[in-house]
Amino acid sequence: MRSLGILVYPNFELLDLFGPVEMFGWLAEVFELTLIGPTAGPIRSNMGLATVAEMAMNERTAFDILLVPGGWGRSIPVDTDALLPWLKEAAQKADRVLTVCTGSALLALTGLLDGRKATTNKALFDWVASKRPEVNWQAEARWVCDDKYYTSSGVSAGMDMALGVIAEVIGQDKAEEVAQGCEYIWHRDPTCDPFARTHCALGP
Amino acid sequence: MRSLGILVYPNFELLDLFGPVEMFGWLAEVFELTLIGPTAGPIRSNMGLATVAEMAMNERTAFDILLVPGGWGRSIPVDTDALLPWLKEAAQKADRVLTVCTGSALLALTGLLDGRKATTNKALFDWVASKRPEVNWQAEARWVCDDKYYTSSGVSAGMDMALGVIAEVIGQDKAEEVAQGCEYIWHRDPTCDPFARTHCALGP
Repeated sequence: MRSLGILVYPNFELLDLFGPVEMFGWLAEVFELTLIGPTAGPIRSNMGLATVAEMAMNERTAFDILLVPGGWGRSIPVDTDALLPWLKEAAQKADRVLTVCTGSALLALTGLLDGRKATTNKALFDWVASKRPEVNWQAEARWVCDDKYYTSSGVSAGMDMALGVIAEVIGQDKAEEVAQGCEYIWHRDPTCDPFARTHCALGP
Repeated sequence: MRSLGILVYPNFELLDLFGPVEMFGWLAEVFELTLIGPTAGPIRSNMGLATVAEMAMNERTAFDILLVPGGWGRSIPVDTDALLPWLKEAAQKADRVLTVCTGSALLALTGLLDGRKATTNKALFDWVASKRPEVNWQAEARWVCDDKYYTSSGVSAGMDMALGVIAEVIGQDKAEEVAQGCEYIWHRDPTCDPFARTHCALGP
């Protein structure tokens, strides 16, 4: 079994979180999911609908894999003073750290991505990059892996990346099985980013 | 504004629900989302993670659009005696009824799909079809629309269908905007079903 710690915070983006969780969750015999928030209990997403954090951050920092979703638009909708020390410690302890969409802005603010390649949502690319210019931000990538850090493009790219991580951790056949089970048309190539140009042309 | 009632019940499939909800939720100026369950309060998904029903079924049956997610595998993980009368009434009142994955089995059990075209998850196709042979089950379709009833294939097909419904209700440009915003590679053609043959060959 591998533990998957899933960070949740007020105004998180629904599919950033539940997309990858669906993929990992198909393999209940391999991945043990724990939703962890600033406080335990209900936490509302940017769309109003809530999920329920099983434990508060101060209760645990050690997970094999850590998943960090993004939040709505051009803001980091969370008290970063409280969050970043936890995120830094949990990310350092984890074997793999995954961010989706603007989740990479949060991880970048810990300094752990400095000098590393990373990506994010393309519509908000410049805004995210400005939060931590020390990161080697990639303007065209569905997702990027640098050492143990996996950062994906916007929202639905998190599902493609999650399947990529599943392939790496327990094998391509298992990842294909999950995609098939979810009837998900998996975009397997992390370098193919159909949203890079359009969005970058539009500007942030 | 249009009201979107989202049915949630114990052991619902996470992405069946949150995939379409992400798409509708991007258009907060158009769609008002309400999560409605057998009881108000936290309801656990098949993967353990919970969401929070804002109201109990007995509080409301009238929505413009009704969304019915599926549940895990070859069971209907819910007390259908309690659910079906509500579902039938809410479906009759709604302008559009959307089911994802095995959600179509639930809707079929109300009798409202009798004689209509509908589809479902392809791995569980025969099982779903056996629940209500009076439905004209379609073995190859990403999603099917018959009158006001929209039924999608497994799990992630719900996102494609949701965008299709958004296109129909408020225009193709808005649907494209949502797909772009979510960086979702939208499969626009409801007749193209890459999972039909593989799964049907494997059998249920």
